[in-house]
Amino acid sequence: MATNTTLETIHDTTSGSTIPAAPVSVVLSDAYGVDVNRHGYKPNTNNKTFIKNAPQCKRIFGGNDNPAKSKLNLAEVDIIITVLHPKNPFAPTVHFNYRYFETDAPKDAPGAPRQWWFGGGTDLTPAYIFEEDVKHFHSVQKGACDKFDASFYPRFKKWCDDYFYIKHRGERRGLGGIFFDDLNDYDQEMLLSFSTECANSVIPAYIPIIEKRKDTPFTDEHKAWQQLRRGRYVEFNLVYDRGTTFGLKTGGRIESILVSLPLTARWEYDHQPAEGSEEWKLLDACINPKEWIC
Amino acid sequence: MATNTTLETIHDTTSGSTIPAAPVSVVLSDAYGVDVNRHGYKPNTNNKTFIKNAPQCKRIFGGNDNPAKSKLNLAEVDIIITVLHPKNPFAPTVHFNYRYFETDAPKDAPGAPRQWWFGGGTDLTPAYIFEEDVKHFHSVQKGACDKFDASFYPRFKKWCDDYFYIKHRGERRGLGGIFFDDLNDYDQEMLLSFSTECANSVIPAYIPIIEKRKDTPFTDEHKAWQQLRRGRYVEFNLVYDRGTTFGLKTGGRIESILVSLPLTARWEYDHQPAEGSEEWKLLDACINPKEWIC
Repeated sequence: MATNTTLETIHDTTSGSTIPAAPVSVVLSDAYGVDVNRHGYKPNTNNKTFIKNAPQCKRIFGGNDNPAKSKLNLAEVDIIITVLHPKNPFAPTVHFNYRYFETDAPKDAPGAPRQWWFGGGTDLTPAYIFEEDVKHFHSVQKGACDKFDASFYPRFKKWCDDYFYIKHRGERRGLGGIFFDDLNDYDQEMLLSFSTECANSVIPAYIPIIEKRKDTPFTDEHKAWQQLRRGRYVEFNLVYDRGTTFGLKTGGRIESILVSLPLTARWEYDHQPAEGSEEWKLLDACINPKEWIC
Repeated sequence: MATNTTLETIHDTTSGSTIPAAPVSVVLSDAYGVDVNRHGYKPNTNNKTFIKNAPQCKRIFGGNDNPAKSKLNLAEVDIIITVLHPKNPFAPTVHFNYRYFETDAPKDAPGAPRQWWFGGGTDLTPAYIFEEDVKHFHSVQKGACDKFDASFYPRFKKWCDDYFYIKHRGERRGLGGIFFDDLNDYDQEMLLSFSTECANSVIPAYIPIIEKRKDTPFTDEHKAWQQLRRGRYVEFNLVYDRGTTFGLKTGGRIESILVSLPLTARWEYDHQPAEGSEEWKLLDACINPKEWIC
């Protein structure tokens, strides 16, 4: 598997702020038929492993034609987002999103410094817990963080648990990973390298899990539970996700904004997994976030 | 079919403000096994006709233990809500909700008059249009309205089209019906009679349609389109519905708040029905609300 492909960037850039998309795209394309290309994307492929995937790479700059850009007075946005929803209920969903924003100087102070920040994260949403998988996933995130600052993983792991909180359920949508936003209190080059490292860590964190779980035999009950958890995914995205709710309010392109929703989801009235069951264990870990690496 | 059962009320009440639930409950129970009882409800029944139904009758008064009541300083709430999601893609979903609210006098002015208002509506959400069905449905709503005020149907029909608007899609979730809220500019007894008439009109408006469509043969493609429209139902309820969004923010009982969601729903990336197709006709009517009764 080509995990060490040459670092390419979405575009050349003078500010040095572009997050590389190529390693992710090459591996997913080669191995799984996921079309994460550099200048477009083709979501919703129903391939052997994934029922829906939603890769997006965007570089938007100049002009304020985009409603979201206009609202934030953005001069530049570099962003790579992918959500992969596997078919098999034992194979977890992954979402990652690394982004760089730069605002224009205010109109009444053209000489003022521009604002810039990095944001992003990678998080895992299984329907069933395999502790070794979750530990592996978090270990790779921690490894990426530790190359830059030992405080990053604990800080961004907690931020992830806090961010993906479905308040009305009292549970997280999944088992977390790392998340950060509005990050500009470090050197810009360092944060670009860090974001790049994180994006490059998606493949080694996720693909070994998919390889192990994608063909596990399952029953209709396993599938129904996966679908119910995907209902929670929908609830989080529509009600709480900052990007989604901002996009809905500012009239962005709706198919791009909602592309991360699963193909199908399910809501059962007052579903309560039996205490001690595998479903209950997952729910418990979503309610009470755990430290996966001791 | 017992459409003319004796009018019963949820409780006896001194204020005369209780909306009767019995006719709806008796007919649905007898004919379809939907358990709309007076003092509780059992949603999510997977019966022959409906994949999910969500009947609720509530009468809450005294005390401010309920977070929503506390927020609005409510003294009394009478409410009957039901959502019925049929299995057959040619059989439409119906939702109705009739409610009476009464607030306590402000704490610093215990002698001040209490506020009260009626709200409610009945709306139809098909995946496919049968013009005769939609006309029948709207005619029954108009008939109920016209008994009280000739301005009601046009006013509440438009209010319904405006209310069930999924702004980010530029489309309504369905083909409307009637909707009103914060209504207190008429005599209280008259509004109670009107709400009662509307609630009693659900059965004659909806059940003949269900009878006609519930066993229509269908393909996987019809089912997928129904599921996709149910995705829109989820979007409306989670993002725009006043009751749902208020409930989510005020920490109400989540299973009651989200009980109206369909059992299953679907999101396809950038799905565009072919122009002129049956799916396109439905979408067109959701984008451009029609006058069904000339």
